[in-house]
Amino acid sequence: MILTVTPNTALDVTYRVPRLVPHSTHRVGDVVERPGGKGLNVARVLAALGHEVTVTGFAGGAAGAAVGAALRADGPGRAAPLHDALVPVGGTTRRTVAVVDAATGDTTQFNEPGPQITAAEWDALVAVYRDLLPGVRAVALCGSLPPGVPVGAYAALVRLARTAGVPVLLDTAGEPLRRGIAARPDLVKPNLDELAQLTGSRDPLPAVRDARRKGARTVVASLGPDGMLAATPEGTWQARPPRVRGNPTGAGDSAVAGVLSGLVEGLDWPATLTRAAALSAATVRAASAGEFDRQTYDELRPRVEVSARTAGV
Amino acid sequence: MILTVTPNTALDVTYRVPRLVPHSTHRVGDVVERPGGKGLNVARVLAALGHEVTVTGFAGGAAGAAVGAALRADGPGRAAPLHDALVPVGGTTRRTVAVVDAATGDTTQFNEPGPQITAAEWDALVAVYRDLLPGVRAVALCGSLPPGVPVGAYAALVRLARTAGVPVLLDTAGEPLRRGIAARPDLVKPNLDELAQLTGSRDPLPAVRDARRKGARTVVASLGPDGMLAATPEGTWQARPPRVRGNPTGAGDSAVAGVLSGLVEGLDWPATLTRAAALSAATVRAASAGEFDRQTYDELRPRVEVSARTAGV
Repeated sequence: MILTVTPNTALDVTYRVPRLVPHSTHRVGDVVERPGGKGLNVARVLAALGHEVTVTGFAGGAAGAAVGAALRADGPGRAAPLHDALVPVGGTTRRTVAVVDAATGDTTQFNEPGPQITAAEWDALVAVYRDLLPGVRAVALCGSLPPGVPVGAYAALVRLARTAGVPVLLDTAGEPLRRGIAARPDLVKPNLDELAQLTGSRDPLPAVRDARRKGARTVVASLGPDGMLAATPEGTWQARPPRVRGNPTGAGDSAVAGVLSGLVEGLDWPATLTRAAALSAATVRAASAGEFDRQTYDELRPRVEVSARTAGV
Repeated sequence: MILTVTPNTALDVTYRVPRLVPHSTHRVGDVVERPGGKGLNVARVLAALGHEVTVTGFAGGAAGAAVGAALRADGPGRAAPLHDALVPVGGTTRRTVAVVDAATGDTTQFNEPGPQITAAEWDALVAVYRDLLPGVRAVALCGSLPPGVPVGAYAALVRLARTAGVPVLLDTAGEPLRRGIAARPDLVKPNLDELAQLTGSRDPLPAVRDARRKGARTVVASLGPDGMLAATPEGTWQARPPRVRGNPTGAGDSAVAGVLSGLVEGLDWPATLTRAAALSAATVRAASAGEFDRQTYDELRPRVEVSARTAGV
């Protein structure tokens, strides 16, 4: 069992319009709603890969009910169960609205801020997390914190996982990442922007090494089309997938699922990074944002190039 | 009592963003939700003017529940009761998302299509409408038809109102307007685009007269900043409000409320059009789309200029 934590779950709504014209009125042809938030995306990919997974986080209001119902329904392509351990809250789960321009394929995104979380609600989530920890082989802490959650919340969850002896991956940004990394997680998975914000450098190799010095045992950076760069206690590797075109939404979450699954299966870093890079590229090429196509994944995996990196190269 | 019918009710959502940048991600600072759909806007303005009003139409799913709850709650500025006679449906009431660019004040609008309505649901709405008709002094049929409702639906509702001896106003577009006008409603309220679509002419004066010949007893066209142009059995008038700046969303619905209230109060056409034009302009100048400010309305009303129009002028 793998646990993913998503404090700021979302109902992801996609609107397809013939063409986005700012300051005009659009009739939306097609409305698609699905559960969202990074940890929920990670969980779906893990279930598709055959890993039993539990999701926790907050859910409230009509959007929260829709998130829970969709999670509990059997999803397409699930090869293992996905369990719902979401904590109910008084506020309303945020929606994200992605407007897809059918003419260009480009997406314009609007993200609501999320519900105000009370201290009691946060305590309830920590209690659920503590109860689940002894039964899981790895945990991922994913995404932004909704209003009201203390900025050091992820640091506290990292410490609880470490105390329980459960490997913990942190995938967030800004101050929650800065505080969380100081609590010494096993893994962080920043993208280039998050890495630059954390270390002050946009040069990936020095930046991932600097991020390790800040407290993470391993840093796996997602570099978009350039794949994954991992600084680990065993060495530094870069995995480059073939170039693909499509929608990058959810590609980082698929990479997290690849890294977590490699970790619990005991794969070495080159094999883990190959999987993560192929999953990520397969997600970019999928028809729906945040999904991944199994056939594309099988096709791309042998074409990922992994190379050891040394400082200065 | 006045009745408004809104088959395609909506939950109107407003997102305020610092600046709309197509193909980028926006954190939404502020989310406002309120009941929407033309007939619901008309009803709110009527209640503010002191006219007791009942709304019917369809409501379903989480968005429909939110629409009903907000309608039943006492709204600000209501001077008369607003009754909820919405008909529950299995589908989900549509949302409309208005993205307001805080830098320019411009709005970019996304309208979902609305729920699929079954024949039984349509029959249920007709039954509610028949029951309400004997108790009302006027009825307004407002807005688009959701998927599944027959295109001649408004024509049938117009005929039922005429049989019951209740004055009926039709405010819709396209084929539902074309069919509805042939059923001889007392009033239609097209805007310039709808009028052009109906008559083939963008020249307002010949177009409103042509629209009368198609079956409406009176045609009141809303001309945006040029105010209202009415072709009636008693003559043709134009009412011009002072120029105002702001958001035109809901201005046409306020005009409908002005016309209906003038009708049931027995005002003459110049007085009715003055009220409609002032309400419409006050709505453009209001802080929130679709609201109107009483003080602005009182200020603008004496400044509306009404003139009789003759053919060729």
